[in-house]
Amino acid sequence: MSVELLFSILDHAGVFLFAVSGGIIAARNRLDPFGAAILGAVTGMGGGTLRDMILGSLPVYWVNAPEYLALALIGGVAGYYASALVTSGKGIRLKALVWADAAGLSVFCVIGAQAGLAAGAHWSIAALTGVMSAAFGGLLRDIIVNEVPLILRAEIYALAALAGASAYIIAVQMGVMTSVAALGAAALAFVIRGAAILFGWSLPPIGKID
Amino acid sequence: MSVELLFSILDHAGVFLFAVSGGIIAARNRLDPFGAAILGAVTGMGGGTLRDMILGSLPVYWVNAPEYLALALIGGVAGYYASALVTSGKGIRLKALVWADAAGLSVFCVIGAQAGLAAGAHWSIAALTGVMSAAFGGLLRDIIVNEVPLILRAEIYALAALAGASAYIIAVQMGVMTSVAALGAAALAFVIRGAAILFGWSLPPIGKID
Amino acid sequence: MSVELLFSILDHAGVFLFAVSGGIIAARNRLDPFGAAILGAVTGMGGGTLRDMILGSLPVYWVNAPEYLALALIGGVAGYYASALVTSGKGIRLKALVWADAAGLSVFCVIGAQAGLAAGAHWSIAALTGVMSAAFGGLLRDIIVNEVPLILRAEIYALAALAGASAYIIAVQMGVMTSVAALGAAALAFVIRGAAILFGWSLPPIGKID
Repeated sequence: MSVELLFSILDHAGVFLFAVSGGIIAARNRLDPFGAAILGAVTGMGGGTLRDMILGSLPVYWVNAPEYLALALIGGVAGYYASALVTSGKGIRLKALVWADAAGLSVFCVIGAQAGLAAGAHWSIAALTGVMSAAFGGLLRDIIVNEVPLILRAEIYALAALAGASAYIIAVQMGVMTSVAALGAAALAFVIRGAAILFGWSLPPIGKID
Repeated sequence: MSVELLFSILDHAGVFLFAVSGGIIAARNRLDPFGAAILGAVTGMGGGTLRDMILGSLPVYWVNAPEYLALALIGGVAGYYASALVTSGKGIRLKALVWADAAGLSVFCVIGAQAGLAAGAHWSIAALTGVMSAAFGGLLRDIIVNEVPLILRAEIYALAALAGASAYIIAVQMGVMTSVAALGAAALAFVIRGAAILFGWSLPPIGKID
Repeated sequence: MSVELLFSILDHAGVFLFAVSGGIIAARNRLDPFGAAILGAVTGMGGGTLRDMILGSLPVYWVNAPEYLALALIGGVAGYYASALVTSGKGIRLKALVWADAAGLSVFCVIGAQAGLAAGAHWSIAALTGVMSAAFGGLLRDIIVNEVPLILRAEIYALAALAGASAYIIAVQMGVMTSVAALGAAALAFVIRGAAILFGWSLPPIGKID
C-alpha cells in the first residue's frame, strides 16, 4: 500500500471517528438530528481546517474533496442514532464518546505533524500542528455545547497527541519508513490515551489554589 | 439592477441585520455600548470572514471595504440602544433578536453558496459554505455571551439556511437568472425560518437520552 | 535600535505576557500543567494568528519562528507555577492575571495596527486589526475555561486597545518616528487600561434591561 493511500485512509477514518463523537455529544445534549450533523461536521473537519488555514494550504482540504463532508455528516448522524440504542444511565454513551475521540486523536496527531513537516516547518511547529489537528475539532465540539473541554480536564489528552506527533517526527528523522512511523505513532498515541482513560491517569495539578 | 449590485446590497443588509442581533444580545447580557459594538462586528462579519478564510479568498472581504466595519458597528450600537426603548418583560427584545437573525440568515446562506460556486467548489461544498456563512456569526455571538447557540436549539435553523443555499444552487444549475434565484432562495429561507419561529416547528430529538 | 528590532521585542514580550495570563487562568481553574501550557499558547499566539489569517499573511508568523511557541509554553507554565506561590484568597492571582493581560494588550494593539497598515488596509481596518490582535487571544482563553470574557465585562478594555491602535495610526500619519509612535501608543493603552483597573472605570450600560 502506498504512503499516500495510507494517509488518505487514516485521514478519512479520523474525520469519521471525530464526527461520531460529535453526534454522541449532540445526543447527550438533546439536540435534534440536524444539530448532530452540524456537530459531526465541526468536530470531524475542525482540526484539519485550522491546520490548513495556519499553514496557508488554501482552500482547505475538504473544499475540493466533498466526500469528507459526506463522511462527517454520516458519522454525526450515526453517532446520534446509535446513542439512542444503548440503555440509558450506564455511562455507555460517555464511554463511546471518549473512545471515538481517542481513536480520532491518535490518527489526527500524526496527520497534522506530517502536514507541518510537508510545509517545511520546524519540528516543534510540526508537533504543534499535530496536537492542534488532533485537539481543535473536539475543543470546538465541547465549547459549542458548553461542556468543559475534554482537553482541559485532568486526564492525559493533549499529552497523548504530543507523544504521537513527536514519535512520528522523530521516527521520520531517523529514517524509519513513513508508513511504519505513521502507524506506530498513531498506535502509541492510542495506547497512551487509552491507558489514561482506563486507569484514570492524570498529571498532578498544583497544590494551593484560591 | 446588475447582479453585482444586488449581491452587494444583500451582503451589506446581512451584515447590518446580524450586527443588530449582536447589539440586542449585548443589551440582554448587560454589556456596555462598546461591548455591543464588538458583538455587532463579530456577528455581522464573522460568517463571511470564516467563508473567505476557508476558500482562501484573502485578505478577507472587509479588509479592503471598510464600510462593512462601519455598518456592523452602527448596527451593533443601534440594536443595543433600540433595546432600551422597548418595554421590558414582554419578550419584545427576544423577538427582535430572533427576527433580525432570521433575516440575516436568509441573505447570507445565498451569498455564501454563491461564494462557494464562484470558487469552483462542488455543489455540496457550496451548500456548506452557505450554511456556514449564515450560521457562524450567530454561533460566535452566542458562544461569547455563553448562551446555548440558537443554531443548536430545537427550532429549525440550519435547515432553513441549507434550504436557501440549496435552492439557490439548484436554480442556478437549472439556468434561472442569478438575481431571481438569489431573491427567491433568500425568500424561501426566510419563510421556512419564519414559520419555524411563528409555529414553534422543530425536528423531533431522539427518544431515549441518558 | 532599529524599528524592526523594537517591534520584534514588543511582539515577543506580548506573546509572553499573554501566555502568563493564560497560565494563571489555568491555575485558577485547576487545570494540569499541560493544560496551562496549552492555554498559554492559545492566549499568547491566538491574536496574531487570527490577524495573519485575516490579512492573508500565511503561513502565520509562528510557523517559521518557533521561538514564539517556546516563549508561549514557558510563559504559560511560569504563570501557572507562579500562581502556586502566592497566598490564596487575597485576590493576588486575579490582579496578576489582569495586569499581565493589560501589558499584553498594550503591546499587541500597536503591533496589530502596524500589520494592518503594512498590508495596505484603510486606517479604520488597521485599528480593527489592532483591537483584534490585542483581544482575540484573551477572548479564546476566557471562552475555553468558560468565564465571561474580560473584554465583555464592564471595565474599559477594548476601548484601551482601540485608543492605542488609533494613537499609533494617527501618529504615523502625522510623521512621528515609528518607534516613538509605537512606544507612546503602547504606553497610552496601558495607562488607560491600568486606570480602568485601578479606579474601576466603566462605560455606563443602558438603563432598562429585561
